[in-house]
Amino acid sequence: MLRVPYGDLFDALVQALLTLGFESQRARLCAQLFAQATCDGVYSHGLNRFPLFVSTIRNGLVDIHASPALVSAAGSLERWDGNAGPGNLNAHSCMARAIALGRKYGTGCVALANTNHWMRGGSYGWQAAEAGVIGICWTNTLPNLPPWGASSPRLGNNPLVFAVPRPGGHVVLDMAMSQFSYGALASYRARGELLPVEGGFDSEGHRTRIPKAIEESMRPLPIGYWKGSGLALMLDLIAGSLSGGKTTHQIEANPECETGLSQVFIAIDPSAFGEVERVADITDEVIRDLQSLPEIEAVRYPGQRVLKIRAENLANGIPVDRSVWEQVRRISRNT
Amino acid sequence: MLRVPYGDLFDALVQALLTLGFESQRARLCAQLFAQATCDGVYSHGLNRFPLFVSTIRNGLVDIHASPALVSAAGSLERWDGNAGPGNLNAHSCMARAIALGRKYGTGCVALANTNHWMRGGSYGWQAAEAGVIGICWTNTLPNLPPWGASSPRLGNNPLVFAVPRPGGHVVLDMAMSQFSYGALASYRARGELLPVEGGFDSEGHRTRIPKAIEESMRPLPIGYWKGSGLALMLDLIAGSLSGGKTTHQIEANPECETGLSQVFIAIDPSAFGEVERVADITDEVIRDLQSLPEIEAVRYPGQRVLKIRAENLANGIPVDRSVWEQVRRISRNT
Repeated sequence: MLRVPYGDLFDALVQALLTLGFESQRARLCAQLFAQATCDGVYSHGLNRFPLFVSTIRNGLVDIHASPALVSAAGSLERWDGNAGPGNLNAHSCMARAIALGRKYGTGCVALANTNHWMRGGSYGWQAAEAGVIGICWTNTLPNLPPWGASSPRLGNNPLVFAVPRPGGHVVLDMAMSQFSYGALASYRARGELLPVEGGFDSEGHRTRIPKAIEESMRPLPIGYWKGSGLALMLDLIAGSLSGGKTTHQIEANPECETGLSQVFIAIDPSAFGEVERVADITDEVIRDLQSLPEIEAVRYPGQRVLKIRAENLANGIPVDRSVWEQVRRISRNT
Repeated sequence: MLRVPYGDLFDALVQALLTLGFESQRARLCAQLFAQATCDGVYSHGLNRFPLFVSTIRNGLVDIHASPALVSAAGSLERWDGNAGPGNLNAHSCMARAIALGRKYGTGCVALANTNHWMRGGSYGWQAAEAGVIGICWTNTLPNLPPWGASSPRLGNNPLVFAVPRPGGHVVLDMAMSQFSYGALASYRARGELLPVEGGFDSEGHRTRIPKAIEESMRPLPIGYWKGSGLALMLDLIAGSLSGGKTTHQIEANPECETGLSQVFIAIDPSAFGEVERVADITDEVIRDLQSLPEIEAVRYPGQRVLKIRAENLANGIPVDRSVWEQVRRISRNT
């Protein structure tokens, strides 16, 4: 396996983005978001997603020069238009705005329409936690999940992120509404493994642990069956109606054409109560309680594994897929 | 089956609460919350929960005269102390306050500490939707759910509510983090049925569809396995740290002694953008799209079944458990 130092990965991504025409500061932030996701072990939405990101720039879906514009403001609640800019830059900008609103009003909410895939959702949770605020955000997606009771994908798997700041390591949950992403299904298939639990239906409508059967039927299971189906719907309704943008059923089902997404970013600033330390203490006590269980190796809090992988990858280099790494370097060299 | 008109159920509950010493207006609101939950088909947290509610009054856990008091305010974010008042009155009051903050600031958030079981969580979602705002709220609970990877209940099943207003019928999701509540397990057992999907572990650690095995092991499954476990933790962390109250591991595990709960109520007012009709239209379009699927009978949006049951129960009387109904009437008559 090829391992690449963080700095090399970051530099290559910056160079590739500059070659694609990004303005310098934007190239650096965009590269950082891709490199950090990769360093944190979210390879599917880090480096491995970069080629698809590039093709959505080349096919005109993503306007690399566009930034979100304020559409409507009402105190702590704002509506922004993403102008089809790069999804990760748009999302980072809107979480930053939600944090600013949270600092001013206690809570802040930004609804963003007309944006592109935000890559790793957890990035914006870590961003909020780093700023010392509680962050909640979600996105809708192209239709890739059948509602409970139906067989055609009509809902999105709508990733949902919750983040709580904690000096000893932020607690950040980043989860999609399907039990396994298509990326995870592909990985299990490639390794010749069954899923650890049922992950969807086969083409005959039976629940199955065979990843290939689910890829073919396009019927992954929502988390908690009817419950995750309902939650995916709520997230789509709120993102679409608050932002005034598209809901999942209006979004093109092909990942190469997925655009016009709607997102919500909420920041709640506990320092408003002047009790930052007490908030950190409460969070810490809960995590310590979890870690006092006899199954200490098996029980993990959301974000715990990220910190471990991040440390390993910073120390030993970040594992990269050789062919993707070569693609990035070819773009950097403009060859 | 005994069916009781809504008015009779409401009157009997008001009378019982007056006998227990409630002030008149509070008795009426408390009775309304219990009666509406029952009328909407949430029997477990309507009439059938009333005897346990009465015993928590009699054992001193619930102070029937207490109301929430403002602890700390920071613009759209407030912290309230529930003073161990009746959980449903406290929750209704705090959602009302969140709605008022939402109307003023665009978004509003109330964190409530030191409260009691809120009975049916969906009540406060319907309350927000009736007021024309998007509502998000959750509560922590006593420890009743093992974290993923562990075998002892250390997390709560922390019900989470999302509500979106819609003129044709609000969309309201009310779901706990366990796949099946203990109430649902008991119902399946009583009917001699297996669960439709795996609902927990037996005492030997195997996943099972046998309700009794899960009741005995006290190891229900979180929705989406590791995902629901993570989400339950996040909800507890935010509720505890924002309210300054207790987190699940500090709460007594016995339902007769469950008190000191922490809750969060968020209201987002889309009318702030002056586009109430457009918001309703977007929601309506999504629901209509779902209802265009060939599996029209099987696909339901959250809240759809409630409206159907509510109409049936208003027309034909509300089905009540004879022995519970007798208990309520005995309390009303003070016999």
